Amino acid sequence: MRVAVIGLGLIGGSLALAATARGDQVVATDRDEAAGEIGLERGAIARFEPTIDGALDGADLAFVCGPVAELASLTGQALEAAPSGCAVSDVGSTKGRLVAQVGANPQFVGGHPVCGSEARGVANARPELFDGATWFLTPVAETDPSAHRRLHTFVSSLGARPVAIDPDAHDRLVALTSHLPHALANVLVNQAGAGKVDGHDPLAAVGGSFRDMTRVAGANPRIWVDIFLDNRTALLDGLRDHSRRVDDLTRALEREDAGFVARWIAEASGHRRRLLEVAYPATPEDLYRVRVHVPDRPGVLSGITQALGAEGINIEDFELHHVSAERGGTVVVTIAGQAEAERAVALLDAQGYGAIAAPAVDE
Amino acid sequence: MRVAVIGLGLIGGSLALAATARGDQVVATDRDEAAGEIGLERGAIARFEPTIDGALDGADLAFVCGPVAELASLTGQALEAAPSGCAVSDVGSTKGRLVAQVGANPQFVGGHPVCGSEARGVANARPELFDGATWFLTPVAETDPSAHRRLHTFVSSLGARPVAIDPDAHDRLVALTSHLPHALANVLVNQAGAGKVDGHDPLAAVGGSFRDMTRVAGANPRIWVDIFLDNRTALLDGLRDHSRRVDDLTRALEREDAGFVARWIAEASGHRRRLLEVAYPATPEDLYRVRVHVPDRPGVLSGITQALGAEGINIEDFELHHVSAERGGTVVVTIAGQAEAERAVALLDAQGYGAIAAPAVDE
Repeated sequence: MRVAVIGLGLIGGSLALAATARGDQVVATDRDEAAGEIGLERGAIARFEPTIDGALDGADLAFVCGPVAELASLTGQALEAAPSGCAVSDVGSTKGRLVAQVGANPQFVGGHPVCGSEARGVANARPELFDGATWFLTPVAETDPSAHRRLHTFVSSLGARPVAIDPDAHDRLVALTSHLPHALANVLVNQAGAGKVDGHDPLAAVGGSFRDMTRVAGANPRIWVDIFLDNRTALLDGLRDHSRRVDDLTRALEREDAGFVARWIAEASGHRRRLLEVAYPATPEDLYRVRVHVPDRPGVLSGITQALGAEGINIEDFELHHVSAERGGTVVVTIAGQAEAERAVALLDAQGYGAIAAPAVDE
Repeated sequence: MRVAVIGLGLIGGSLALAATARGDQVVATDRDEAAGEIGLERGAIARFEPTIDGALDGADLAFVCGPVAELASLTGQALEAAPSGCAVSDVGSTKGRLVAQVGANPQFVGGHPVCGSEARGVANARPELFDGATWFLTPVAETDPSAHRRLHTFVSSLGARPVAIDPDAHDRLVALTSHLPHALANVLVNQAGAGKVDGHDPLAAVGGSFRDMTRVAGANPRIWVDIFLDNRTALLDGLRDHSRRVDDLTRALEREDAGFVARWIAEASGHRRRLLEVAYPATPEDLYRVRVHVPDRPGVLSGITQALGAEGINIEDFELHHVSAERGGTVVVTIAGQAEAERAVALLDAQGYGAIAAPAVDE
């Protein structure tokens, strides 16, 4: 197959590497010729073309991987240049506006691979970036089924899980699962960082859970301004629902309604359990968190992971909460099965670490 | 010294173990005699007493470690039974109401050790629980300075960092850093779990950052209903400020104000950087996150941590984001220094792992 990549950054580059590894012939274009040189050097692409027309010449499949603000214009150009029978897709993280702007073109299927993108540029591209990732595809009534099918097959062959969804439903879904939480992380850190409380800086008094909740705060302004604005309709719905929920809690606390608070926590506990069910093969009731206090020293983590690995104990999740150079930190290892967790505690105790196991989900 | 512990759970038990290790004589009481038996078996306490009067007899220092709702009553009883010169403290996570209820007693100094408490009960108690933890103390005008001094010295000797603070300021501070984020985690998971979007369950589509943000959701209803209600004045202030901030964002998105959104993200980025400055010895600009895709197999983590440890590369933070048994997961290792991060990438590449390094803070 001939695959065209328009925009050779982290995602476009990873796509190119993965397609080349499959045996496809990949031709790329990018405003920045240096990206093309790196792509050629890394063996990600067979050829670099200075224009979209050149890249699309003879293509069977084309991916537009530019910034959100330019997606509609780039996709329009790609569709004009695409040979008949060539399927055109994109990798933008919002879909409703783009699909509306592109209009009813049977060759176009919107797409969104959900994968981490902390690094940037084709230099950091990796063929396994999409392995295990959800890849949303947004075919509409006008879409040529063969374009959707070709894309579905290609995406699956990269190890991703294609999920067909209506473009507007996609935007409401990611508003809830990604854009709203991201916005709240910013709100939370801005509130805690706004000033001192009686001379004490709240940011100096936060613990690991606050750090976890605000990990994405302040990230990539160039990307996120566009995402928030582009998906503002769905995000605004999410923010208004959030405000109503915060108001409900506010009124319950004002009237000291312990029953409301207890039901509200129980509801959260149920959802959290369902979330873990999806994320882990084990049932949530079967997951245990083993906590170990460790000194801040190279080799300590390998001592722990090695001891567990040597005994065949599988680690579902592993976190190091760093305290300080003087005091060390806490390692939390998630393990499936009470017996396995107890075996892990005994092993770590034997190594001189004080380990504690507790169920991951509160009973 | 003679130390009395009223309530022998995780915190009381850990306190008893740490005090015994210091050479203190620890006497405990608990409504549940079985807790006393475990405490004696584990060598945490020298003696169990069925009553508060018995436990306080001859004590130099007493800690009330009961549930939030009973703290005032238990502290009152402890102060009545306390010999003159005995300092009495507690370990509750809110302070304003308790200090007001206890009244102006020179022997009382409110306290709050900020330490994880996922496990429960004296069976899971550990003497190092307070190592490196902030331990708030809330002396007031009426407090006997020698009681505050004795407590300050004791707390320091357990490895904790005593911080003196006004009781109401304490509650406003923890409302911001702990209770508000905890409440928002519940709100967020309840909103995402409330229903399907066009047939898709949002909780099945969340990524690692959503899971991180809602880790505390639904936890310990027996503890958290009391905390939310007890600290409702400060939490309500926090929720109202939060609502104002969400409204500001909502209005900015309604008028498509890209300038507001960009400034708001930049503000979050600055606060996030300050937060990392406090948490890590390295400057935030110097922290790199190295991402590695790994299969789901015992021993994989030890291969990685061992390779880095053997080369003397210090790991500041370590996370495993689990994807699935078939697809494996992503390890994120935080390392100080660009050269060290690049060395880690080269080492992991040599082992056949595709590693990517990127700055932890966005430029």
